[in-house]
Amino acid sequence: MDIVIGIDIGGTKTKIGLVDNTGKCHAKTYFRTREFPDLEDYLDKIKAVSDELIQNLGEKVIILGCGIGAPNASSKKGTIENASNLVWKGSVPLLEKLKERMHMPMRIMNDASAAALGEMLFGRAQTISDFIVITLGTGFGAGIVANGQLIDGYDGFAGELGHVDMTIGDGRLTGLGVRGGLEAYVSATGLKRTIMYMLSKYLEDSKFRSIAYNDLHGEEITKAAEEGDIIAQKAFDYTAKIMAQALANFTAFTQPEAFILMGGLTNSGKWIMDPLEKYFNEYLLEVYKGKVKLLESGMDGKTAAICGAAALIWEIEKP
Amino acid sequence: MDIVIGIDIGGTKTKIGLVDNTGKCHAKTYFRTREFPDLEDYLDKIKAVSDELIQNLGEKVIILGCGIGAPNASSKKGTIENASNLVWKGSVPLLEKLKERMHMPMRIMNDASAAALGEMLFGRAQTISDFIVITLGTGFGAGIVANGQLIDGYDGFAGELGHVDMTIGDGRLTGLGVRGGLEAYVSATGLKRTIMYMLSKYLEDSKFRSIAYNDLHGEEITKAAEEGDIIAQKAFDYTAKIMAQALANFTAFTQPEAFILMGGLTNSGKWIMDPLEKYFNEYLLEVYKGKVKLLESGMDGKTAAICGAAALIWEIEKP
Repeated sequence: MDIVIGIDIGGTKTKIGLVDNTGKCHAKTYFRTREFPDLEDYLDKIKAVSDELIQNLGEKVIILGCGIGAPNASSKKGTIENASNLVWKGSVPLLEKLKERMHMPMRIMNDASAAALGEMLFGRAQTISDFIVITLGTGFGAGIVANGQLIDGYDGFAGELGHVDMTIGDGRLTGLGVRGGLEAYVSATGLKRTIMYMLSKYLEDSKFRSIAYNDLHGEEITKAAEEGDIIAQKAFDYTAKIMAQALANFTAFTQPEAFILMGGLTNSGKWIMDPLEKYFNEYLLEVYKGKVKLLESGMDGKTAAICGAAALIWEIEKP
Repeated sequence: MDIVIGIDIGGTKTKIGLVDNTGKCHAKTYFRTREFPDLEDYLDKIKAVSDELIQNLGEKVIILGCGIGAPNASSKKGTIENASNLVWKGSVPLLEKLKERMHMPMRIMNDASAAALGEMLFGRAQTISDFIVITLGTGFGAGIVANGQLIDGYDGFAGELGHVDMTIGDGRLTGLGVRGGLEAYVSATGLKRTIMYMLSKYLEDSKFRSIAYNDLHGEEITKAAEEGDIIAQKAFDYTAKIMAQALANFTAFTQPEAFILMGGLTNSGKWIMDPLEKYFNEYLLEVYKGKVKLLESGMDGKTAAICGAAALIWEIEKP
C-alpha cells in the first residue's frame, strides 16, 4: 500500500497520520506541541512518532513522502515565519531540518491552504474549481483556490484573511496586533471574547456569569444556546453577522462558487450556520446573489487536517 | 500588419483603437456612449467606427479579432450585467449581438481585468506573476492576477472590490447601494465627495467653497493642493488613508508582488501617492512589509484601456 505521512502542526497539538490515496487515514496519533520548546527536540519527536506509526501498522507500506500543514508556513521557502501561536520565533527552516531526519519528498504549506487541497482531492471540492476553505479554530484561516489552482501569493503568504481589518466599533486586537481584525471576532477565541462582550452589554442572566474566561469552551456555548441562554444566542448571532460581512467582501475578490467551512466553530451547527446564511444573503452584492454556496467540510473533522497535509504529496503522486 | 481592434466601453465614452502585437495603438477614436440609448444603434455605431478606422489607416492590415473591456462584463457569458454606469439595463448579450455585425474572434471582459491583461502583455507586469491592477476612474475597479493567471471567478465577476464594505463612520453609498463601499471614497467621484465632506468638517477657506459639486473636476483638486489649499490637501490624505487600508487588506488575500495603479486619480501624482505609500506601510501586516510594491501603470493613459481590451485577443494570438 502506498502511504503519505500527513502532519498538522498546531499551537496546541501536533497531529501525525498515515493517509492512502483515497484520503483514508490508516493510523494517527498526536503529541503536545508546547512540550518541545526546542526545535531540534521537536523534530526528533516527529521522526520517532512517524517511525512508530509505520511499524505499528503491521502492513507492508511504501512511504511516498510527507506533507505538513502549519500556521504561517511559506510553501515557497519551506519555513514557518513568526507564527504567533507557536513557541519557535522568527523564521523557522522546518522543511530543511526535518529533511535531515526523514529522507523523503516533503512539502509544507499554510494549514488552511493544505485544508483546501484536502477538500479538492478528498472532500467537497472535487468538482469545484473556484472556492475558499475557511478554518475556524483557535484562529481564522483561509485557503483560496481559483481556476482550479491554489493561490500561494508572491512568497507563499496568500490567504491571511484572519487579519483583514473589519473596523468594527473600537476594534479588538488580533494576535498579530491588527485592531478590528477578523479573527478577533470569528474563531473559537473570538466567540469566547464575544461572550464577554455580551455580558458587558446586556443584563440578562446567563450561565456564563459564573464561568471565568479561561474556563470557557466552545461546546458549552453551543449547549447554552440550545438551552435558551440569551447571551450565548446573541454571541452566535453577532459572530455570524461579522463573518457574513467578511465572506460577502471575500466574494467580491475571487468570486468563489463555494465557501467550505471547517474547524471547531462549525460544530455549533445551526447556531452559527442559520444566521450566517441569513446575513450572507443580505450582504452579498446583487450580481453574486444565489451563486455562492456555504458548505460544511466533506472531511472527517478528526482527520481533516492530517489528510489536508497529506494532500500536498498526493496532489503530485496521484495519477 | 496584424491588428486587433480594442474597444473600451465606458459610461461616458466608448473608445476604439487598432493595436499591434507590441501594444502600439495605430489609430483611435471615440464617441459618447450615452448618445446611443438603443443597444442596436450602439452596436451599429461600433461597427461603422471600426470600419472607418481600418479604412483610414491606409495600410494593408489583417484583423485578428476584437477585444472589449466593459464595466460588469462577464467573460464567461459574454454579457454586461446590471452596469450602474451604462444606460442598457439588465443582462446585455453584447458579444453575441456584436458578432452578428463583425464576424471575427471576439472576447469581452471586465475593464479592470482587461487592464491587468494589458499590463501583463505590454506594461509593467511583463515579469510579475502575482499582481493587482487598480483602476481609479469614475469608479474603483480591480483586475487580479495570481500564479500568472487572471482570476475570473465562478461566472466571471471576480474583482468587484469597489463594493467591498469598509464600514467607515456612517458610510457613504456606492452606485450599487453598498453602504461604506470602497469606491464611494477611493475614485474620482469619491475624491469629489470627500471635498464636500472636508468643507462640512473644517472651516478653513478654500477655492472649493465657491465651486458647486457638479462643476468640480479632479484636475482642479490637484491644482488646489499644489497651491496650498488645505481642504484639497486634507481630501487627498483622507482618500489615500482609506485606499491604503483597502490595499493592505487585499494583500492578505492573494499576496501580490505589486499593485499597479491607473486612471484619473493617479494623475494627482505625489498628492495621492506619497500619503498612500506612507499609510500602506503602516497598515501592512508584518509578514508582508517591504514585499509589496505600489507602481504606476506602464501604459500610456490615453490608450491604456484600448490596449487592455486588445490584449484579450493578443493573449491568445501572441506566439
